[in-house]
Amino acid sequence: MNQPRIDGKRLWRSLEELARIGATPKGGVRRLTLTELDREARELFSRWAREAGMSVAVDAIGNVFARRAGADPGEAPVAIGSHLDSQPSGGRFDGAYGVMAGLEVVRALNDAGIVTRAPLEVISWTNEEGSRFTPVMMGSGVFAGVFTLEHALAQKDTEGVSVREALERIGYAGPAKPHRLGAYFEAHIEQGPVLEDTKTTIGVVQGALGQRWFDALITGMDAHAGPTPMALRKDALLAASRVVLAVNRVGTAFPDNARGTVGSMQVKPNSRNVVPGEVRLSVDLRNAKDDTLLDMVSALYASLKSIEDECRVAIELKEITHFPPCEFDPALVASVRAGAKVHGHSHRDIVSGAGHDAVYVARVAPTAMIFVPCEGGISHNEIENATPEDLSAGCNVLLHAVLERAGRAAAAARSAA
Amino acid sequence: MNQPRIDGKRLWRSLEELARIGATPKGGVRRLTLTELDREARELFSRWAREAGMSVAVDAIGNVFARRAGADPGEAPVAIGSHLDSQPSGGRFDGAYGVMAGLEVVRALNDAGIVTRAPLEVISWTNEEGSRFTPVMMGSGVFAGVFTLEHALAQKDTEGVSVREALERIGYAGPAKPHRLGAYFEAHIEQGPVLEDTKTTIGVVQGALGQRWFDALITGMDAHAGPTPMALRKDALLAASRVVLAVNRVGTAFPDNARGTVGSMQVKPNSRNVVPGEVRLSVDLRNAKDDTLLDMVSALYASLKSIEDECRVAIELKEITHFPPCEFDPALVASVRAGAKVHGHSHRDIVSGAGHDAVYVARVAPTAMIFVPCEGGISHNEIENATPEDLSAGCNVLLHAVLERAGRAAAAARSAA
Repeated sequence: MNQPRIDGKRLWRSLEELARIGATPKGGVRRLTLTELDREARELFSRWAREAGMSVAVDAIGNVFARRAGADPGEAPVAIGSHLDSQPSGGRFDGAYGVMAGLEVVRALNDAGIVTRAPLEVISWTNEEGSRFTPVMMGSGVFAGVFTLEHALAQKDTEGVSVREALERIGYAGPAKPHRLGAYFEAHIEQGPVLEDTKTTIGVVQGALGQRWFDALITGMDAHAGPTPMALRKDALLAASRVVLAVNRVGTAFPDNARGTVGSMQVKPNSRNVVPGEVRLSVDLRNAKDDTLLDMVSALYASLKSIEDECRVAIELKEITHFPPCEFDPALVASVRAGAKVHGHSHRDIVSGAGHDAVYVARVAPTAMIFVPCEGGISHNEIENATPEDLSAGCNVLLHAVLERAGRAAAAARSAA
Repeated sequence: MNQPRIDGKRLWRSLEELARIGATPKGGVRRLTLTELDREARELFSRWAREAGMSVAVDAIGNVFARRAGADPGEAPVAIGSHLDSQPSGGRFDGAYGVMAGLEVVRALNDAGIVTRAPLEVISWTNEEGSRFTPVMMGSGVFAGVFTLEHALAQKDTEGVSVREALERIGYAGPAKPHRLGAYFEAHIEQGPVLEDTKTTIGVVQGALGQRWFDALITGMDAHAGPTPMALRKDALLAASRVVLAVNRVGTAFPDNARGTVGSMQVKPNSRNVVPGEVRLSVDLRNAKDDTLLDMVSALYASLKSIEDECRVAIELKEITHFPPCEFDPALVASVRAGAKVHGHSHRDIVSGAGHDAVYVARVAPTAMIFVPCEGGISHNEIENATPEDLSAGCNVLLHAVLERAGRAAAAARSAA
């Protein structure tokens, strides 16, 4: 049986054309969810989908489902998706690649005259980024029942516009009802440095790290930097610095893809010659295993106790978010790995450190993801970059895995144009 | 010979009355330099000085000199001073105590009918705090020739008003010419915790710590907290935290009243789930000896080198300020100690960690300072507090030291009223 291939140049051209919508001077994209620019991107995607013979439906949270009929209309669709919205100062590939790769899979199947047994769907999820409206991964979250449609529709941006209003303004509050997916694939740039660092083309994503986020408040005592001897200080920034080191140690010492990050810190009074009396900071702990994640939390608490005693400060730690780890479907993951082998691409198992629509969809359908390298591991940045070759490779692996799952109903003699 | 004493109640009443000018709800003072409130405070002080038989002169930077004639008009005056301006959210005693204590010394001498050989001067220096106009210690700095009058007059506040304009508005651009001081004493609350911590009433100030201030810029690389393994990070905040620890270690490990403080820190992008790529922070190193201060700087540089290598970041350290250590006049310091002994007050040698007008005046005249305890070591705060007893004690010590230096010309039979 012939092994169909995607058209890398066509994929690249589609990505380039899409990137013009909200293009920024430095080559990035600013396309906030449910804005006029987001509408334009949705229209372009919908037009291309229809041109590829698909029917387009929109649900009540604005998720767009482009469907290619299968030989067996009773079978649940094999879906491919990601998102078209961007960060305020985002890149061209984050999200856009997953949707365009889905479209390219359909175009390549059309070219090869292949009809799948199960229907296919290419999905563009609403508001993955969460930059304009929280929570993040809103469209897939509603689809997977993580939170309710009403909750999502009621969220407001900083100008007081609700999701409901924004959807109506751009005409994307649709009638489509929830439906079952037979499988879900998402191709995405890695947004991390591992593939580039190990010179690997395909990341076979095993699942996503569990996350526990905390806010810490450290209370010491303001004091003049000059008159206050070291021994009489209650320096909240000294304590905070030890917390940063403790979080890093926890991230470094534990197995199972542990991560520990302090990303933000506010110092008070933040004056050059005053010993800081108060520091607030964030703690972000991640791990592929929930048990190990809990062990990390315990180790952190033990460190905080010593820091409190030794620095004579009080530390309050409050958990604000908990995403459990997500394990992708072993059969689909195996299909992705097989696709990489078939196409002769270097590949390695990898775990997603970040959240993706796939993490929510995995709660209601067998799911897998494919990562391709991005330059310097940089994403959420205008200078985000990926090579046409790697993007093509990922898309060919996606085509293989989708086809393996959806099955071939018939192969026409017609070859790629 | 009788030992005159100050009137502690009168001193306290004067401080209370002065504190009404710019009083804040929490019992503090907001009396920014060269404002209408500062004018009121200057007028009150001048009126009291004239009522005590003194003549009042103002120089071109607005310093107020209240003079009590001595028996020998050719002798340079023995001066007592501090400042009447406050921090934006300041206390009742910082500065005000030194000026009011000077006034009380004169009142007490009047009561005792004592004429000194050398003239006395009570000085209120302009803009010690530096909150509205930089540099700090402006009036004493101009007086001591640390910077020029023209430089000081040209400085502007955040609303674009220059020192020159502000002085003219409140009518305090005076004609008095620079003159020599025979000696200078300044009584001040400690603004630190040492006296309270050691249950000591009088701090016999030996001098002031030298200070070297730096700005540090730490450059790593922004990265997503999830997808970026610990080993591939260039975490600027992790490096910054190690810098904080290194500065603290330097402050703790060196002798001669070493201090090491990181008071301010700005983290970029300061987002919960992004490994920070840039941190700016301040470093404040102090020591009583210039050689030791330089050793502290060297030790810090050595630490920074390791941190750069181990955290894979770049650290730039730029020196922005250097005040050399200041040693007060041994004879005057001995007079202060003698005054504490005569009055039976507990006392200890102490070094001033902060800058004071006395530090600049010490460049042009023999100088000494007297510290009294302040509650919790807290200053530059509305809740700054000191007891009437301690303030009286400091003022009696001041009277003793001033009289020892200025000499008695005649003691009338008239006793304190």
